[in-house]
Amino acid sequence: MKEISILDSTLRDGSQGEGISYSVQDKINIVKALDELGVSYIEAGNPGSNPKDMEFFAEAKKLKLEHSKIVAFGSTRRKGIKCAEDANLQSLLAADTDVVCIFGKTWDFQVTDIIHATLEENLEMIRETVEFLVAHKKEVIFDAEHFFTGYNENAEYAMKCLEAAASGGAKILCLCETKGGMLPMQCYNMTKDVTARFGKIAAIGVHTHNDSGCAVANSLLAVEAGATHVQGVLLGFGERTGNANLSSIIADLQLKMDCSCIPAENMQNLTPICKRVAEITNIALEAGMPYVGSSAFAHKAGMHIDAVIKNPFAYEHVTPESVGNERVFLMSEVAGKSMIVEKVQKFDKTLTKSSPIVAEIVNRVKELEHQGYQFEGADASFEILVRKAIGKYQPFYNLHYYKTSGEFPRFADDQSAFAQFKIDVDGKVVVTAGDGDGPVNALDVAMRKALEQFYPNVAQIHLTDYKVRVLDGKGATASRVRVLIESSDGDEHWATMGVSSDVIEASYIALVDSFEYKLIKDLERKFGKLM
Amino acid sequence: MKEISILDSTLRDGSQGEGISYSVQDKINIVKALDELGVSYIEAGNPGSNPKDMEFFAEAKKLKLEHSKIVAFGSTRRKGIKCAEDANLQSLLAADTDVVCIFGKTWDFQVTDIIHATLEENLEMIRETVEFLVAHKKEVIFDAEHFFTGYNENAEYAMKCLEAAASGGAKILCLCETKGGMLPMQCYNMTKDVTARFGKIAAIGVHTHNDSGCAVANSLLAVEAGATHVQGVLLGFGERTGNANLSSIIADLQLKMDCSCIPAENMQNLTPICKRVAEITNIALEAGMPYVGSSAFAHKAGMHIDAVIKNPFAYEHVTPESVGNERVFLMSEVAGKSMIVEKVQKFDKTLTKSSPIVAEIVNRVKELEHQGYQFEGADASFEILVRKAIGKYQPFYNLHYYKTSGEFPRFADDQSAFAQFKIDVDGKVVVTAGDGDGPVNALDVAMRKALEQFYPNVAQIHLTDYKVRVLDGKGATASRVRVLIESSDGDEHWATMGVSSDVIEASYIALVDSFEYKLIKDLERKFGKLM
Repeated sequence: MKEISILDSTLRDGSQGEGISYSVQDKINIVKALDELGVSYIEAGNPGSNPKDMEFFAEAKKLKLEHSKIVAFGSTRRKGIKCAEDANLQSLLAADTDVVCIFGKTWDFQVTDIIHATLEENLEMIRETVEFLVAHKKEVIFDAEHFFTGYNENAEYAMKCLEAAASGGAKILCLCETKGGMLPMQCYNMTKDVTARFGKIAAIGVHTHNDSGCAVANSLLAVEAGATHVQGVLLGFGERTGNANLSSIIADLQLKMDCSCIPAENMQNLTPICKRVAEITNIALEAGMPYVGSSAFAHKAGMHIDAVIKNPFAYEHVTPESVGNERVFLMSEVAGKSMIVEKVQKFDKTLTKSSPIVAEIVNRVKELEHQGYQFEGADASFEILVRKAIGKYQPFYNLHYYKTSGEFPRFADDQSAFAQFKIDVDGKVVVTAGDGDGPVNALDVAMRKALEQFYPNVAQIHLTDYKVRVLDGKGATASRVRVLIESSDGDEHWATMGVSSDVIEASYIALVDSFEYKLIKDLERKFGKLM
Repeated sequence: MKEISILDSTLRDGSQGEGISYSVQDKINIVKALDELGVSYIEAGNPGSNPKDMEFFAEAKKLKLEHSKIVAFGSTRRKGIKCAEDANLQSLLAADTDVVCIFGKTWDFQVTDIIHATLEENLEMIRETVEFLVAHKKEVIFDAEHFFTGYNENAEYAMKCLEAAASGGAKILCLCETKGGMLPMQCYNMTKDVTARFGKIAAIGVHTHNDSGCAVANSLLAVEAGATHVQGVLLGFGERTGNANLSSIIADLQLKMDCSCIPAENMQNLTPICKRVAEITNIALEAGMPYVGSSAFAHKAGMHIDAVIKNPFAYEHVTPESVGNERVFLMSEVAGKSMIVEKVQKFDKTLTKSSPIVAEIVNRVKELEHQGYQFEGADASFEILVRKAIGKYQPFYNLHYYKTSGEFPRFADDQSAFAQFKIDVDGKVVVTAGDGDGPVNALDVAMRKALEQFYPNVAQIHLTDYKVRVLDGKGATASRVRVLIESSDGDEHWATMGVSSDVIEASYIALVDSFEYKLIKDLERKFGKLM
């Protein structure tokens, strides 16, 4: 088994992605998550360029990490000065980490035309900077900026830069694909050449971007070519098209290429940790992300489902459990009964394909799908449907009516609608009103006001996504629409759906399912059993 | 230069993706877009498994395509019957396409344990099916299902299956990675082996999925190994983690691997066509998608921007123009003026990029795009915007107000809302009312009643499609929505758009543009000149 050290740069290169920004506490939480996963290095920021990072490094110092070393990131000294005079390097030392990663130019054009140094000068900057940091007892990773382009344009000089870093005492020489766009065979061949020359005096690493859609493959091929260090970002975000996705790379290396990147027993935490990092980053974890996305082990086409249950090896490249993910059978018209049975058995193990209640649910699902429901995307609505069919459901309130009104010109900049909502719970009647930006928003406001009087936990629900799809545009403004709502209470995520030719009604149906699902789960948590 | 034929399966394998579903009109629009891009084959559906697909094939027959051939998809005949008796194959013939793609088992386990046939029987099923289709003058692509797993488990048998298809007369043998998870080197080696054996009697193709995060790279390596046919989905969606992303593959092959997949001059349409397909599919085009995403050429880190301007080669792997995309400096966006100039010149040929009015329109477009407009999909709204800027627009009426109300329980089976609409035209005031299925429908009814009093031709307008897209689901029920309306008067089709956090308001804006566009065109027809 080959040992591969992983450097996660979520907090440094990843945070260059559009819309990504972290508080110090976010960063601490991500460090904890990555340490729990067990990566070797966590590149956490550039103390020289970002004063906020200093505060983080001070905080991070207090953490007791089990697997990971924190890495401070910076560049080689500026030209024309000594290392000790370089403010950037002083900041790097002040960050007080055991490991430092510095980047230096290795593409001749960048040296002469961008930083306006001589080629010889740049070699000295690299060697001296590494020596300086090693003298201060740092473990040094050298990030060879633009290495692949540099190698293409002037391989001899690019190699001299690595030589300078190695002779300065760098432990890892990391080949960085700064502008991106490398193809797999190129990456393989260049890494092979570098490994042949330097593989005995330093570990060879690779740092790729996804501009040609090959960041993961490029990293894997670099390992095939002898690299033993891989840099990337757990969820693959970053500038432009993103950094190499480490969740894919770790799973590929560990499950398929006989490499060890993280402790074997942590592989089953991969999906939960990716979810947590997405949550802290405040982004949705892409459903289609390899290994860890919610669709990664989802099966749809009807004819396959029986087969998957019979023999997962026939349709899955790895088991979902091996990466802490779950197999999902998507509800859909073409799907057979078997997956409905699986859902129903959660409530009653004695039910089988031939139970009348199962046939009834199948018919109900077919009827609703004909109307435009698509339960594959709405697990919570499907659970409520099953509950209603088998008598495991009680309404939480009784609706008298809702009314909405909208108007233009708007009555306030962010208000154009008004809603009224009347319900009773066990005979206790409340009427509430809300205003908002459009009638759906106003109704949402009024509903919460009413429900929170009886069920305070409704306040914990926030809607994380709201989607509207017109099902058959030919009905034009009277077309049937499907509303999909994704909700979260911080712990759990769930999705609900409503269909109607009235967008307010469709939204109302999805909102009710969402609120009720939360209340049911709260009851289950409270009583520690399926309700 | 190596010729590579591309098969796009957006409408077949892609539509297996979660939440993807197309109307017949959507499918026709996607066929047009793919033909405009210039792929060789468009796999459009499985006429045997889905009766709705038959309607599509009949419609598609009427299209005059310039580059692409429509492909119907199905499977080898069932065991124990003759091809002529197989209902599925009859449907394939009934679809009346020049090209047919059939999949057959090539993994021994699937033959014996899933379809319970003997290995010999399966070979006959493959050979006879291909022969049958060839006898009916079809060009046949054979999709070797589970080929890579089959090859791993029993290479000799997998090869025999290809042999059967080839001897039956298949023009293309496509190696399919059905369960996904292949690694690049494996894909390369297997394809090399197949090419060596069959490369002289058939074209070798590859069909990969992204379960190991390597679908694009696997496709490229298959081409390196001798494949000349690549199957995938333009935007990479599909079951589980998705199909191989053709927008990345086409760009990689064409710009970096000296291959020809589509006419060279069409490369600059890649991004606009991807945007259009995303819009029809009602999904957001991923910002980070290689080559075509809005962030693919976005530059953030301050220190780079000067350098990029000075020398794009220093920081970009290809130019954004080469794929019809745009460079974006995240802090100060520089929008492409050329498309705006083109539109404006329709009205005034003397206008150029440096005309102040063009700069004004660019600013207005930027502002609206920031709000969520996307004029690629709304030609008529864009024309009205240009007309407003250059003074070629007069309002057809003056809105006093509209008011809508909706309620539940509904007041009739198909009625849940009421609207009131007040306008004047040249001082003549009318107030109308409408009821309908939801407030948008009620407003549409009331608007038409009012406008038809002045402009009887409004009655000719019917809305052929109505789409709602939530732009940032995080605002939940107060999220900004983009409404896209497609209209027709029997002769012409046009599309308009409105954006607001109130779905009624967004719909109103799009409706007004649609009605006004029709009235402007009528005036132009009447007076035989641009108005």
